[in-house]
Amino acid sequence: MSERKIMVFQTDFGCKDSTVSAMYGVVKSVDRNLEIITGTHDLPPFDIWSASYRLWQAMRFWPEGTVFVSVVDPGVGTARKACVALTEDGYYIVTPDNGSLTHVLHDNGIKEVREIDETVNRLRGKGTDGTSVFHGRDLFGYCAAKLAAGIISFEEVGPVYDVSQIVTLPVEEPSVNGDEITGIIEIDDPNFGNLFTNIPTEMLTAMGIDYGESMRIQILYEDDIVFERTMPFVKTFGDEAEGKPVLYNNELLKLSLAVSQGSFAERFHIGFGGGWKIIVRKDG
Amino acid sequence: MSERKIMVFQTDFGCKDSTVSAMYGVVKSVDRNLEIITGTHDLPPFDIWSASYRLWQAMRFWPEGTVFVSVVDPGVGTARKACVALTEDGYYIVTPDNGSLTHVLHDNGIKEVREIDETVNRLRGKGTDGTSVFHGRDLFGYCAAKLAAGIISFEEVGPVYDVSQIVTLPVEEPSVNGDEITGIIEIDDPNFGNLFTNIPTEMLTAMGIDYGESMRIQILYEDDIVFERTMPFVKTFGDEAEGKPVLYNNELLKLSLAVSQGSFAERFHIGFGGGWKIIVRKDG
Amino acid sequence: MSERKIMVFQTDFGCKDSTVSAMYGVVKSVDRNLEIITGTHDLPPFDIWSASYRLWQAMRFWPEGTVFVSVVDPGVGTARKACVALTEDGYYIVTPDNGSLTHVLHDNGIKEVREIDETVNRLRGKGTDGTSVFHGRDLFGYCAAKLAAGIISFEEVGPVYDVSQIVTLPVEEPSVNGDEITGIIEIDDPNFGNLFTNIPTEMLTAMGIDYGESMRIQILYEDDIVFERTMPFVKTFGDEAEGKPVLYNNELLKLSLAVSQGSFAERFHIGFGGGWKIIVRKDG
Repeated sequence: MSERKIMVFQTDFGCKDSTVSAMYGVVKSVDRNLEIITGTHDLPPFDIWSASYRLWQAMRFWPEGTVFVSVVDPGVGTARKACVALTEDGYYIVTPDNGSLTHVLHDNGIKEVREIDETVNRLRGKGTDGTSVFHGRDLFGYCAAKLAAGIISFEEVGPVYDVSQIVTLPVEEPSVNGDEITGIIEIDDPNFGNLFTNIPTEMLTAMGIDYGESMRIQILYEDDIVFERTMPFVKTFGDEAEGKPVLYNNELLKLSLAVSQGSFAERFHIGFGGGWKIIVRKDG
Repeated sequence: MSERKIMVFQTDFGCKDSTVSAMYGVVKSVDRNLEIITGTHDLPPFDIWSASYRLWQAMRFWPEGTVFVSVVDPGVGTARKACVALTEDGYYIVTPDNGSLTHVLHDNGIKEVREIDETVNRLRGKGTDGTSVFHGRDLFGYCAAKLAAGIISFEEVGPVYDVSQIVTLPVEEPSVNGDEITGIIEIDDPNFGNLFTNIPTEMLTAMGIDYGESMRIQILYEDDIVFERTMPFVKTFGDEAEGKPVLYNNELLKLSLAVSQGSFAERFHIGFGGGWKIIVRKDG
Repeated sequence: MSERKIMVFQTDFGCKDSTVSAMYGVVKSVDRNLEIITGTHDLPPFDIWSASYRLWQAMRFWPEGTVFVSVVDPGVGTARKACVALTEDGYYIVTPDNGSLTHVLHDNGIKEVREIDETVNRLRGKGTDGTSVFHGRDLFGYCAAKLAAGIISFEEVGPVYDVSQIVTLPVEEPSVNGDEITGIIEIDDPNFGNLFTNIPTEMLTAMGIDYGESMRIQILYEDDIVFERTMPFVKTFGDEAEGKPVLYNNELLKLSLAVSQGSFAERFHIGFGGGWKIIVRKDG
């Protein structure tokens, strides 16, 4: 018995209606042996940056060959390409080429990318002809299922194009200047209100900062200082009293900010994205 | 190896406790080979209209023979029938017969319907005897699993009754009067705030309206005009600037209203249901 | 063909990012034949009491041998034990030993408990070394998958310790004094706003109270009376008009409070937990 192929889905469709169900039904109608896993359907609507980050966040933990379908697609039906990318580490990603591949391209690397040929890899019939607003169901889900099921090869997705043509969002790189590290608040942990920076914790280690020590933190929004405080760098949340703000090494080995058993983002009104800069200095 | 039978669930149970888990556990205890798919558990509480619409919305995309379990059941434990319907196109639906079959009966058609015989197709033991408030677990989930697993045949669900006895909610039909089309706002797209009318887009085509043209839209709530505006009919959201209200052909080929990258329902305070009428006229 | 092993997950991680996806990816990388079921990922953050209750609420409905993973873990990375418990009725639970086993220990009973040996049963590599904040992915999910897949035996989880050492939260027992029953509001039904007491309905039956009769209810918060009313004891919600508060026998055979098609918790501002006492008297 050959193993079931795994497909992991992430979208901004929400879970309150039958949008996801229709997409999954299409997949199962292609091959009922495919295994469907819900990554998340609650990405912030139209937020391509989050799609890109979330795709990268979990990918490495899945078996090689897993097919990811990512649909945050504000430009659905326009000239933006629909594509399938094969990463250097052997994952397939089926997505609009609208910036959703930014983090994976930067970190995992992309070996080859192909534009989906709609003339053969788009769902027809069932009352879908003539609509251009639900490519999750009619194009991405359908084409991904055919690929995962082995009905089409990667080559049969459609014509290859140059990896350098993949659309990317601007990525800020963290930098070290003497005893100062500058980065951005890259994303949040929406359930707990923690904030993840793009600063690898090893940059702190390289500066000789260890757990138990404190750092001086400044957060700037559009170049205005909106937060400034000395905070301890803890190994676990339990190292600080409930309600205290802390710095920690997150699950992706990046410097992060939390309030022990509380929400840093809410308490200090801090958001994320390119406009949110963070400056870290060793204290004292 | 015989293929795994697929069961698709939709309820208003929410996802915050172990209600869904208990129901799925019953299913897996009947036959652990059954494949469970979550349609949605976030239907608006007690909203039978939404249950009926959402069931219809995704059904056609699933393989023939799929067993749907729909439980929005404000009358649980009362005299309302518990039933299994077989649609004309070969799907099974296990549901309270309380109006949840309205759209499927109207559109797919129902070939035969049977009342669940509680004396044989209700879960016994495990501390469930004596409770009448959780038929999703004790009756619908359990009976559906037995049917999907082939432990009982459709005939063994219970006695057949006449399709004409199925409980339905009132359905409004769209109508054309000269150059004016009248319909209702039938349902929302709860994640993006789009609104779906019950007007097939082909009614517009028949009147000679094409993408790029504009239409005069009136929305009435209980016969008062609450919205009036000339709006463009676009092929994709990207055809109009962000924040602009548009008309479009939705994924079910019905005329729909959206704000490009925004929420039409929130911005204009428009709801859905029989009380919300829409009148469409070709502009100019 | 051997049957697929079932794993049921409950956490407070939420569903808005790729936290759950990373955990599930680890599981599938251990053995892609494992079947993953989402119990819930929307437990109230840091609420060990809810984790304990929700684990107990659904467990008995699953097939024997099912592996449950429960991760509400405010003390992640501290000295609290990570464990696997085997219940008297044959389920495995992989969880921080922080009170999450309270209800199951009390009701199902625990036959044996073992501390997870992190030196062999923790995920290594993939950029997880050096982080101590995501044991759902790196420890509980990974170890549970190895156990479910048969890669390790229960003995190989790690050293056994005495069941009496399991951390428990205080449990209040209901009591009868003449014609008065005292209990607590144990938990809510978060979707419908019903409240579940810890009073078995058979205590009412033993006092000769039957459906259709009324009871005098007092609810106290920290010993202050915050609610007092005579309420009917109904068999189904449909026995009372919409909007009326009722007493009923819930799906776990405990006395519960509801508003027919409304929210009891919201309307009367009642919460749950040890501080919320309820006193029941037969009326008249």
